[in-house]
This record gives sequence, C-alpha cells and structure tokens, in this order.
Amino acid sequence: MPPAYVAGVGQTPFGKVEMPLPAMMAEAASLALADAGAEAVDAVIVGSQTADELAQVSNLGTKVADILGLSGVAAWRVENSSASGSAVLEAAVHAVRSGAYGRVLAVGGERMTDKPTPTVTRALGRVLADTEVRLGLTMTSLAAMVARLYMARHGLSREVLALVPVKAHGNAVRNPYAQFQKAITLQKVLDSPIIADPLRMFDCAPISDGAAAVVVQAASARVEVLGVGHGTDRVALADRRGEGLRATQLAARAAFAQARVSPGDVDVAELHDAFSILEVIDSEDVGFYKRGEGYRALERGETALGGARPINPSGGLKARGHPVGATGLAQVAEVVWQLRGEAGARQVDHTRVGLTQNIGGFGCNNLVCILGSVA
Amino acid sequence: MPPAYVAGVGQTPFGKVEMPLPAMMAEAASLALADAGAEAVDAVIVGSQTADELAQVSNLGTKVADILGLSGVAAWRVENSSASGSAVLEAAVHAVRSGAYGRVLAVGGERMTDKPTPTVTRALGRVLADTEVRLGLTMTSLAAMVARLYMARHGLSREVLALVPVKAHGNAVRNPYAQFQKAITLQKVLDSPIIADPLRMFDCAPISDGAAAVVVQAASARVEVLGVGHGTDRVALADRRGEGLRATQLAARAAFAQARVSPGDVDVAELHDAFSILEVIDSEDVGFYKRGEGYRALERGETALGGARPINPSGGLKARGHPVGATGLAQVAEVVWQLRGEAGARQVDHTRVGLTQNIGGFGCNNLVCILGSVA
Repeated sequence: MPPAYVAGVGQTPFGKVEMPLPAMMAEAASLALADAGAEAVDAVIVGSQTADELAQVSNLGTKVADILGLSGVAAWRVENSSASGSAVLEAAVHAVRSGAYGRVLAVGGERMTDKPTPTVTRALGRVLADTEVRLGLTMTSLAAMVARLYMARHGLSREVLALVPVKAHGNAVRNPYAQFQKAITLQKVLDSPIIADPLRMFDCAPISDGAAAVVVQAASARVEVLGVGHGTDRVALADRRGEGLRATQLAARAAFAQARVSPGDVDVAELHDAFSILEVIDSEDVGFYKRGEGYRALERGETALGGARPINPSGGLKARGHPVGATGLAQVAEVVWQLRGEAGARQVDHTRVGLTQNIGGFGCNNLVCILGSVA
Repeated sequence: MPPAYVAGVGQTPFGKVEMPLPAMMAEAASLALADAGAEAVDAVIVGSQTADELAQVSNLGTKVADILGLSGVAAWRVENSSASGSAVLEAAVHAVRSGAYGRVLAVGGERMTDKPTPTVTRALGRVLADTEVRLGLTMTSLAAMVARLYMARHGLSREVLALVPVKAHGNAVRNPYAQFQKAITLQKVLDSPIIADPLRMFDCAPISDGAAAVVVQAASARVEVLGVGHGTDRVALADRRGEGLRATQLAARAAFAQARVSPGDVDVAELHDAFSILEVIDSEDVGFYKRGEGYRALERGETALGGARPINPSGGLKARGHPVGATGLAQVAEVVWQLRGEAGARQVDHTRVGLTQNIGGFGCNNLVCILGSVA
C-alpha cells in the first residue's frame, strides 16, 4: 500500500470546555494545521459519537470546514462509538492511500459535560445489545463482570488493579492537556465509591469535553502510519467466546502485519483504559504480555514512565479525560509527540515505534494503530 | 487510482417498513451480497443520518455485521446528513482503492415513519446553520427561497415546475421498490397544500423508512465506479455566492475528471429531488444543461423515460421515497440496474454511463458518482 504520514497533530485541553462542539473541533484542527505548516487540505473527516443527541448538531463535517475557511473541500463524519477517533484516522489513511486526496484533516470531538449524567449514560448506552439494555446492563456493569472474571482466573487483586488509575493520574500531572492534574494514592482509589462492584469511581474514565486533530498526507513527514487494524466481535458480551477482547486481538494482528513490526518493537503505547481493568486486558490483547501477565508487568513498573514500555504516558482515558469521539485522535497525537521527542515532562526515551488501541461499543469494535519515526 | 467495481446491489422496499433499523439494513445487505454472489467481505461501512436520535440505536456498523454473521471484520458508520449513502460509497471506494480491503459492503438505512413529523423535522433541521435555525428557517423554506429566485431569474413557471413530481410518480409506478405506486396529474400537484410558498406538498419528498446496499470490490465486475466527486459550500445559504449549488458543481467537476467522461456521455441519472426545484438545478449543476435551461429540457420531455437522457427513472426521492441515509446507495443501485439492463419496466435503452448526485445539509455537502458498464 502507498505510504501515509502524519504531518501535524493538535488537541484542546480536555475537561470542561465551554465552547460549541464545531468551534472546539475547529480549534484542535487549527492547532494540527499549524503544526503541519499546512493551510490547505483536500478533505476534512470529523468524528463524534453523540453530536446529534448531546450537542444537538449535525452536518458536522461541513460546519467544521466552514469555520476553518475550508468550504469547498470534501467533508464527512465517521462515527464508531468510542472508537470514532481511530476510525476517522483509518478513513483518512484510506483516503490518502487511495490517491483520492493528498492531504486530509482528521478531527474528533465531543461535548458531554453540559448534560445531566443520566442523559449522557443513556446516549452512550445505545451502543449495547438490546438484550443487554433490557437486563439493565450498562457499560460499567459489563466492565465489572469482565474484571471479576479476570481477577478470579488470573489472581489479580483489587489493590494491584488500583495501580492503573494511580499511574494514570501520576502521568497526567505532566500533561498540560489532561483533565486531571492531581496525583492520587492507592488508598484514595480503594476508598472511592463503588460504581459496579469491584469497580470504583477511580476505576472509571470521567465525562469530558475536548477535541483532537491529526493531519494525514501522502507527502513524507516525520511520522509514518505503519499500520491500522480494525476488528469487531459479537455485540452482546454473552455471545462472545475466549478471553480478552477478540476485536482488539484481530485489530492488533492486522496492524502488526501491515506495519511489519512485532509487539516487542513498540516503545510506547496509548491503550483504551475507559475502565482500569481494560488497560490490563488491552496490554495482553495487543501482544505485549501473555494472558494473565499484564498486571504483573504493571506491578513491576514496566508500564510506568521510565519502565521498559510505558503505557498511557498521557494519563490515558482515566486522567487525560475521555471525550469519546476525540480519544482515538488524542492517543495518536500523544504517540506522535512521543515519537518526535516533544512530550515534555512525560517524554519516553528512545521512541521509534508507538501504538494506539481504541475500543468502540463495549469492546466489540476496536482499532489498533502503529506509528513510526521516519529515520 | 486502482479500479473499484460494483459487484452487487440491493434495497428494501421504501415506505413504511416495520423493522428495527439494524435488521432492515441487514436485509438490504443480504440482497446485495446475494446479487454479488459473495458470502464474505473484508469490511462493513454503514450510513444513517438520524440513527441515534430517531431509531435510538448506535454502534450500528457492529450491529449490522453481527446480524449478518460477519462479526470479526472491520465495521464503521459514515454520516453525512442526507448524503450519507453516497459518502458511504465514497468511503468504500477509498477502502478498496487503498488496498486495505478487497471487498467492502456499503449499507445505508433510515427509520423515520414511526416518529411524529415535528420530531423528524427537528432531527433533520440540525444540519442547518445556527443563524438559520434562530430565524425559524427549515429545509423547506430554504428550498422555497431557492425556487423563487430561480423562477424569477429564468422564467420557470409554477406549472412547469410541477412536471418534476408528475414525472417522478409516473416513473415510480414502474419501480416495485418505490414508496408511491400511483401516477399523479399536474392539477393534483397544483391543488396540493402549500408547504412553503411556492412549494406545495407534491414538490416535497416524503418521510420514509428503507435501506439500500452496494458491494464494492477490487476484483472486476460488470459495473465500474468511474469517479466519485465530493464538494462543500458555506453552511448558511446567506453566505453563498453564485447560482445553483456550488457543492454539486465542485463534486461534478471532480467526478468527471476522475471518470474521464463528460456530461454528454451520461445516459441515465439519479438526481437529488428532495424538492422539485432541486432536480432542475441539479441537472444544470452536473453539466447536463446550461443555467436556466434545465426546466426547458424537462418541458420538452428530454428527461422523461424514453427521452434523450432520463432523469430519476426510479421515481427519485419524491416517489421512490427518501429514507435519508439510504438514498445515495439507492441511487447507485438504480443506476447499476440500468447499466446491467435489469431495470424492468423502467429500463432506459443503450445505457453505458450513469450518474448519481446526492445532496447533504441544505445543499452544502454534495456528492456525484459516475458508474460505467464494463465492456
């Protein structure tokens, strides 16, 4: 396949952002265009999960292009629930590799904090299977079941699981874009209210506003998209077989095959830790660790800043924040900064290859993206 | 660019379809897969404008793949307001031409008739600019202003404009998938209630349920996608310049350049007649007629079945129906049937090249697709 490069990235601070969604997305886009040193693009692809229902805005691609003064070029929206951002990146890579467009602006964003939590939960819950919704299941209760199973099978303790948010908050302190800028203790996680046993408040990513953008082009730049993999699974958790998330496993296999690198080559990764247990499972699904060993690497500090292969140096979804449609592109922005040596106080040493993994639905539509420094 | 072919097409009947949206889309997909003689695909791309808000369903790509027994493959949604269907086709063409996926299932669908009309109007109206919504403008009142301007400038009479829906209904009688199976008289159009002066009820496409699907692949098939063009314009009508819809003009220019054919080579076309005036303007924007001459061709019968270049042999949005996310792919299905000589009682003679034109927003995000028979 023809190559595709990342020419520029940008994001707004995540958290409570008092701007209309299209303006917020245009702001992230402007930063990415400036970073790319580009004024013109051939297409704009936007991503958002809940724009219609929560932000009450549609025709989002045209509106973002209009604000940016780009009216005329092709524009459309990709929606893939909480993996919308990565799916926008995949679409941009296809558009460039196909020869249709030489340079594509990919922008993801979500406006969520101005609505009551039950409204947000209902909008997000539409991704689940009807059979699950009828039983009263939610994203969090499904994650709790997955956590219980993993803990019972592999001996993960509640205390070690709490190391995920502790690490996330510790890293986020070094990320000026992060929603939470405060380190937390293990005890604080263990004392936080139960949301769905065994998951507590600090095991769950927050509700956030934010936008992130990536400029993808055919012309050479400092970072190359080496591979994008995309897998799905049965929608209802009860219909799935095997351990971990098969959708991630399929995506990782495809991404590594395209990229012609192996999990051992990855220097830094951004994984989808919407719930703490997912970071552990993700790290096994992408091939970093054997099943049941992800949490041992966490416990040994291998995934910490300064460890052998840092995971979520940005603070992850837990502490950078999780404006769903922006997350996949924020992961890519972080990896690009890491590969370019521009990650400031959270810079990982010797980064040549980085990986992002983004989950859609409850773990049934997942993408893995592998990026590499251009020598 | 590498070639992309249409291997199969399918659609459900349009009108009132009492099925959940994912099941309806899976039905159209099954028909397209059977038409293609294909059981496996490498990716599923779905399109819907109002799925979250009207059908209250999200994660649509994964759900359609799950129903079809295709879980595992990549799946995502493209949303581009009323041009969602065409944008799905464009995404499928990019995916195939990039080399990422050898065969892609493109499916569009919408479930609209089970909600009160004001709910539907509000959901569809989110595509407009905030400044327009605040003024109380709707899609129909914007179309009425465009109609008034065209009529004043070019001498189109109310009676001749009424020939658009008369032709549409006449053609739809020959289309078993059409929502309306009844011819109408000129007088019936002129006597129908005013919706936004000068547009009357029969100038406006109905609210519809329906789904359509297209299988796009790299391997040769009987119909080739010769070109896909995509253009945008300022969102607010008041910010636009020039006559007609610039977004269509840009899309047509790009599509014809890719296809290496000219408007005079097109034997049959499906144009976006959500309002009668649009068919006239579209036929000029894509280059079939000079500005102000589209309605004269209509009046002379050149765009009728049996005319020199039939427009909307399917019955168009007006009479086939307009389930918004399905429309662009239903247009492609019709053109493919025409190119393969399978359009039954509405078959156009000597079809080698066909064109579709699909409008998103109020005319600000439009696509043109050119398809050709493979000799």
